Amino acid sequence: MTMDQRRVLVTGLGGAVGAGIRPALEERYEVVALSRGGVEGLPPERNIRADIAVLEEIEPAFEGVDTVVHLAAYGGVNSPRGMWEASWEEVLRNNISGTRNVFEAALRAGVRRVVFASSGATMGGYLKSSPYREITRGEYDRVPAEYRMLRTSDEPRPNNLYGVSKLFGEDLARMYVETTELSIICLRIGGCPADGRPREGDPWNQAIFVSHRDVADLVVRSIEAPEDVRFDVFFGISDNRWRFRDYSHSTEVLGHVPRDAAEDFLGDAT
Amino acid sequence: MTMDQRRVLVTGLGGAVGAGIRPALEERYEVVALSRGGVEGLPPERNIRADIAVLEEIEPAFEGVDTVVHLAAYGGVNSPRGMWEASWEEVLRNNISGTRNVFEAALRAGVRRVVFASSGATMGGYLKSSPYREITRGEYDRVPAEYRMLRTSDEPRPNNLYGVSKLFGEDLARMYVETTELSIICLRIGGCPADGRPREGDPWNQAIFVSHRDVADLVVRSIEAPEDVRFDVFFGISDNRWRFRDYSHSTEVLGHVPRDAAEDFLGDAT
Repeated sequence: MTMDQRRVLVTGLGGAVGAGIRPALEERYEVVALSRGGVEGLPPERNIRADIAVLEEIEPAFEGVDTVVHLAAYGGVNSPRGMWEASWEEVLRNNISGTRNVFEAALRAGVRRVVFASSGATMGGYLKSSPYREITRGEYDRVPAEYRMLRTSDEPRPNNLYGVSKLFGEDLARMYVETTELSIICLRIGGCPADGRPREGDPWNQAIFVSHRDVADLVVRSIEAPEDVRFDVFFGISDNRWRFRDYSHSTEVLGHVPRDAAEDFLGDAT
Repeated sequence: MTMDQRRVLVTGLGGAVGAGIRPALEERYEVVALSRGGVEGLPPERNIRADIAVLEEIEPAFEGVDTVVHLAAYGGVNSPRGMWEASWEEVLRNNISGTRNVFEAALRAGVRRVVFASSGATMGGYLKSSPYREITRGEYDRVPAEYRMLRTSDEPRPNNLYGVSKLFGEDLARMYVETTELSIICLRIGGCPADGRPREGDPWNQAIFVSHRDVADLVVRSIEAPEDVRFDVFFGISDNRWRFRDYSHSTEVLGHVPRDAAEDFLGDAT
C-alpha cells in the first residue's frame, strides 16, 4: 500500500460479488469494508461496522474515500410473487434507503465516484419472451442461430422487488450525477456464484454467469474510467455461449472484454 | 349514479390535478376519495380518511373498486438541490411507500386497473440541454423551427427526488403488470395549475401546461382503455406552442388529442 493509492470503500464485501472482486481491489487500492457484521481479514480501522439504513451511522466511513463500491443489498428473491409481502420492508430498508444513504454520504464526503451494483433483475421480465425463455430453460434447439441481445438501454422489465429497487438506485444515481459533481457508474451484474463457478445443470445461471475475473476487471475499469464517464450503465457478464446480455457498450466505453465463459468451468461443455 | 357505474377510488383528489379531473370523473363514475384529511363535497361513505403510508389503514377503501386513480404525492420541489435533505423522508413515506401500498392494496382487492400520476420531472434533466433550456427561459428566437420532442421512451433524466420517486412508481408498476393481472397506466402529467390556467410570464409553465379538460380526457381514456393496454406511459400535455413533450403515443393508443393550448388562456398570445 502506498500513499497515492485510492481509498476504496466497499459495502457488501462479504457477499458473493465482494469475494469475487476482493483480491483485485486489495492488489490496487486501500480497501475499507463497510458492513453490519464486519468482514474477515481486515484490520479494525478498515473494517467498519455500521448499518447503511442509517445515514448518520455510516457517514464517518466515507471520510477520505476516493471511490465507493456499493454492493450491499437485500436480494432474497425466489419466486417473483412469493417474496413480496415477506420482504418489501427489507427491500425498502436496505436497497432503497440504504442506497440513498450511500450516495448521499458519498456526496457529503466529497467522494469522486460510486460504482453501484445493479442487477440483471432489472430486466427479468424478458425471460418470458423468446428466445430468452428457451435459453434459460436449456431448450437450445429452439433458439435461432442469430438472436438479439438485450442492451442496458432497452426498456426495463423488472419482475421482482429486488429488480425494482435496483432501477431505483440507477435513477437515483442519474439524479445525483445530473445535479452534483458526483460520478456514479451502474453495473448490472449477472450470476456471480461465491465459488466463481456456474451452477451445473442450470442453463439460466450459465447464460447470465459472470466470472470473478470478469467482474473484477469491470469494477476496476469502472473505478479507473476517466472523469468524463460521469454516469453509465453496463452489464457484467462473461462471454458465455448462451448469453443474451450485450457487453459491447462496456468494451466501447471502458475497454472491458470478458475473458471467461461459463463453458470453461463446466464438466462437459454444452 | 347507476348500478353499472365503475367505482373509481381517487387518492389526492383535493390536489390541483384532482380538482381538474373531478367533474369529468363525477359525471361518469362513482367517485370515492382516499385522503388523509378528507375532501369537500363527498358523502362520508365515499370520503375515506386514511394514510397511504400505512397499508393496513387503506386496504378497506379498495373493496369493490374498479379503477384507482393515484394522484397523491409529496411534491415540494423548488431547487433541485435545496429540497433533498429536507424531504427525503417525505418522498420515501408518501411517494415510495405510499405508491407501493396503493398498488399492493389494489392487487389484493382485485382492482382492475390503476391510473398512476407520474410526472415530467422524470425528465427534468433535459431542461439543461438545447432547445429545451431556451424554451423554458422564453428565449424563443434561439429555438430552431424544427426540434425534437421528448418521448416517454427516452432515457429518464430526473433532476430531483420527486422525479426519482415517480420513476420508482413506474418501475414498480412494470413489475406488478409483469407478474400479476393488475393493469397500471402511468401518466407523466405536466404543469396543471389548480385554477386551470398557465402562469403568466412563466415560459416553462406555458411549455409544459396541461389544461383541466385535456388532463381529464387523458385520465378518462386511461380508465376506459381496452384490456390489452395493460401497461403504458403517456405524457399529459396540452397542445402548447412551445411544448417539447410528444403526445402522439397517447393519440395512437388511447385516441387522446389535446384540445387546449397555453396560448388560449394568456392575456396576449406569445
